[in-house]
Amino acid sequence: MKKLLSAVSIVLALSACETIKSASETAVLTVNPIEEMQSPKNIIMVIADGMGPAYTTSYRYFNDDPLTEHIEETVFDRLLVGSASTYPARVSGVVTDSAAGATALATGFKTYNGAIALDVNKNSVETVLEFAKKQGKKTGVVVTSQINHATPASYLSHNVSRENYNEIADSYLDKGIKADVYLGGGWKYFIRDDRNLIEEFKASGFQYIDNYNSLSKLQENTPVIGLFADKGLPSALDDSNNYRLSTMTKSAIKQLENTEGYFLLVEASQIDWAGHSNDIATAMAEMSDLAKTMIYLEQYVKQNPDTLVILTADHSTGGLTIGANGKYEWNPEILRTMKSSPRAIAKKISEKTITQNLLTKLLKFKVTEKEVKQIQLAKNMAIEKLSTYKKLNTQAKSKTHKPMMSQIIESSIKKIIDVRTNTGWTSGGHTAIDVPVHSLGNSSEEFKGKIDNTDIAKKIFILLGKN
Amino acid sequence: MKKLLSAVSIVLALSACETIKSASETAVLTVNPIEEMQSPKNIIMVIADGMGPAYTTSYRYFNDDPLTEHIEETVFDRLLVGSASTYPARVSGVVTDSAAGATALATGFKTYNGAIALDVNKNSVETVLEFAKKQGKKTGVVVTSQINHATPASYLSHNVSRENYNEIADSYLDKGIKADVYLGGGWKYFIRDDRNLIEEFKASGFQYIDNYNSLSKLQENTPVIGLFADKGLPSALDDSNNYRLSTMTKSAIKQLENTEGYFLLVEASQIDWAGHSNDIATAMAEMSDLAKTMIYLEQYVKQNPDTLVILTADHSTGGLTIGANGKYEWNPEILRTMKSSPRAIAKKISEKTITQNLLTKLLKFKVTEKEVKQIQLAKNMAIEKLSTYKKLNTQAKSKTHKPMMSQIIESSIKKIIDVRTNTGWTSGGHTAIDVPVHSLGNSSEEFKGKIDNTDIAKKIFILLGKN
Repeated sequence: MKKLLSAVSIVLALSACETIKSASETAVLTVNPIEEMQSPKNIIMVIADGMGPAYTTSYRYFNDDPLTEHIEETVFDRLLVGSASTYPARVSGVVTDSAAGATALATGFKTYNGAIALDVNKNSVETVLEFAKKQGKKTGVVVTSQINHATPASYLSHNVSRENYNEIADSYLDKGIKADVYLGGGWKYFIRDDRNLIEEFKASGFQYIDNYNSLSKLQENTPVIGLFADKGLPSALDDSNNYRLSTMTKSAIKQLENTEGYFLLVEASQIDWAGHSNDIATAMAEMSDLAKTMIYLEQYVKQNPDTLVILTADHSTGGLTIGANGKYEWNPEILRTMKSSPRAIAKKISEKTITQNLLTKLLKFKVTEKEVKQIQLAKNMAIEKLSTYKKLNTQAKSKTHKPMMSQIIESSIKKIIDVRTNTGWTSGGHTAIDVPVHSLGNSSEEFKGKIDNTDIAKKIFILLGKN
Repeated sequence: MKKLLSAVSIVLALSACETIKSASETAVLTVNPIEEMQSPKNIIMVIADGMGPAYTTSYRYFNDDPLTEHIEETVFDRLLVGSASTYPARVSGVVTDSAAGATALATGFKTYNGAIALDVNKNSVETVLEFAKKQGKKTGVVVTSQINHATPASYLSHNVSRENYNEIADSYLDKGIKADVYLGGGWKYFIRDDRNLIEEFKASGFQYIDNYNSLSKLQENTPVIGLFADKGLPSALDDSNNYRLSTMTKSAIKQLENTEGYFLLVEASQIDWAGHSNDIATAMAEMSDLAKTMIYLEQYVKQNPDTLVILTADHSTGGLTIGANGKYEWNPEILRTMKSSPRAIAKKISEKTITQNLLTKLLKFKVTEKEVKQIQLAKNMAIEKLSTYKKLNTQAKSKTHKPMMSQIIESSIKKIIDVRTNTGWTSGGHTAIDVPVHSLGNSSEEFKGKIDNTDIAKKIFILLGKN
């Protein structure tokens, strides 16, 4: 019979034993033997909206350096501890939306699709962020969507429907201010004709910023609301800062650090949006921003071992598959050099003459004549369609011409990218596949194996001291 | 600050510490402090061919009892410990075939697609089964494919191509008999005009069986080769024993148990075949057979804690997604009552008049008039196609009529099932998504987190005592 435990492991194990023993002996001196184990001071919950297992796997191959012999390990590989089921309450079947998914992660309750931190009977249920605040911790949300979108809203608000964007934004003030840091998008909902919530936040002592540069100039010990776009932020490929999630997360943590600890929600909101749009190029750019954020958090936890970081998804989006059409290949090469999203490129060229040179310049890979023809054909079909509309309604051209043309060209560009990379999609919506769970830091082992999304909230509540 | 460790956990932890301490103290008395940790006596490697994460997730919802409030946990949920990457050697890109996938799991080497236990330079590399035999353990393979198919062959043989079925079968004798138990299909390859390998196995002291009933009447302490079909076994939905993998596994273990321990490879081969065929009904039946096998192994490990069981897949097949086409639903109800595969049903009806009653009787769900028309339409198209062929070649009808008609009807039935269940597929081949890893028993914690398929072989070699 052979043996596995090395001398080093024995030493490590015995040293851990001494810690446990000493903790338990101290514990005996106090009333309760469980008093002495410290739970994390800081909890950072990262939700990668829509990031099913095909996203973390494809990111590995996208991120790979083809010049090395091996395929490089990613931060997602290093931190993987298991998988989570994501199904909502029975009334909504087995495929969740982001509201029910985030409600499960935030409250521990399964609910109907669309609900914001309500149970299936529409009763408000406490969120881990609300409870953390009660415990004296600072709290924050950092997202790339508008800050009143389904996921952050499920930690900060309670509403019968995620669609009630203005109501949700109002609740951020009217139901008591629950966070010390809000970073993301949302001018449209916070600076309205009927109400200027930013002025109200300022009157409550908040500093307000509206550009990424100001993130480095925040006043300490002053709460902050930073909105950087009308709704969601520009996509990672198109934003002035391709790593805006990582930048915002660093600033938020700096702002939140205090002796009592903090709870921070970070959402990589737009992996989901890229999935809905079946846009692999944008999905990989969003994954890169998330990877950079996670690498930063890995370093942060090394310096701050009293911090727990959990990363999971609320569901998977798009039915993404790595390989398709019977071909045993997935070729991410062209994705690595793209500098603009298919949507942004389509907008740029919809009113121009489409040439091989122009497309090659924008897509950063050598576009073939056949591919140029495909896009031209798509454009011609759009023109024909629009001409029919115009005959029916003279207002149609000015109203719909640009967006429709642009959408059709965008689809055509995405199709070319899917064919070249051999990427598959089955849906413009969500699927029910279990999602990866990653964790690191204090108590990270609590999240290993197969768990349900509601268990994540339940474990966080326990870590925060809820009975 | 709050606390997590309960009094019970402290007691358990301290008791574990005593074991570690006592092990390490004993170790100090011997030369090497790592001598005392026992590795598993028995290792059971279960490969679910093609079982990506969408299969284990969809099985949960397929297996669910809709009458209970909760969704039932599956054996796959209980045993999940992480995920494995499956990419082959660089020369074959990132999407593996079953030969390179099984070679990685069997030998620890990445290789080219098609290779059977050779490295990328076509050199033979030792398999864990071969090494286990050298260590004095008994060995066995239980599969639902032919026993000389890519996965079992990668543990038992070495060949430049998985397609060399006869060569691989010959090698099972010519290169020395490596296993004590072979159960699966393969008459076509083992009883040939040019060579009768079964007679040779018998001459080498093997007992031969060719039906499931004989599994309960095997002689102890006598090696066995059991072949139950010409190539692969009938699919789980169509076989005389829907749980043939579970039945064969029980018999194999009984046959292999001995004081030196054993290494057993179990392959649920046909999850992959259902995936290639984009057949969700058959996939779920194959998953049921695997689940029953794993539940048996769970009980077995309770009784035999010196056993390690690992379950993983070599890759995912079909680009299966749970939900598709923008709809937030997956409806497995009709799959739960099906008693025959779409292929078997198509064969039955291809020469008959297709009526609503006949289809409803065979599919076990109420087929609509629209669905009947779809199948009739498919049949008419097939008739037209065949009539064209017939004009070109008078031999065509008799040669191709039945299979082609049957295939077209089968596709049509699968389409109806996909629409009703809202199942998505992107490929008739494999995809590169990471696959689930499940383990239990002695040393099972070695396989947790994200690992590469080659690491599984490397860890098994270490557990078997290879330096």
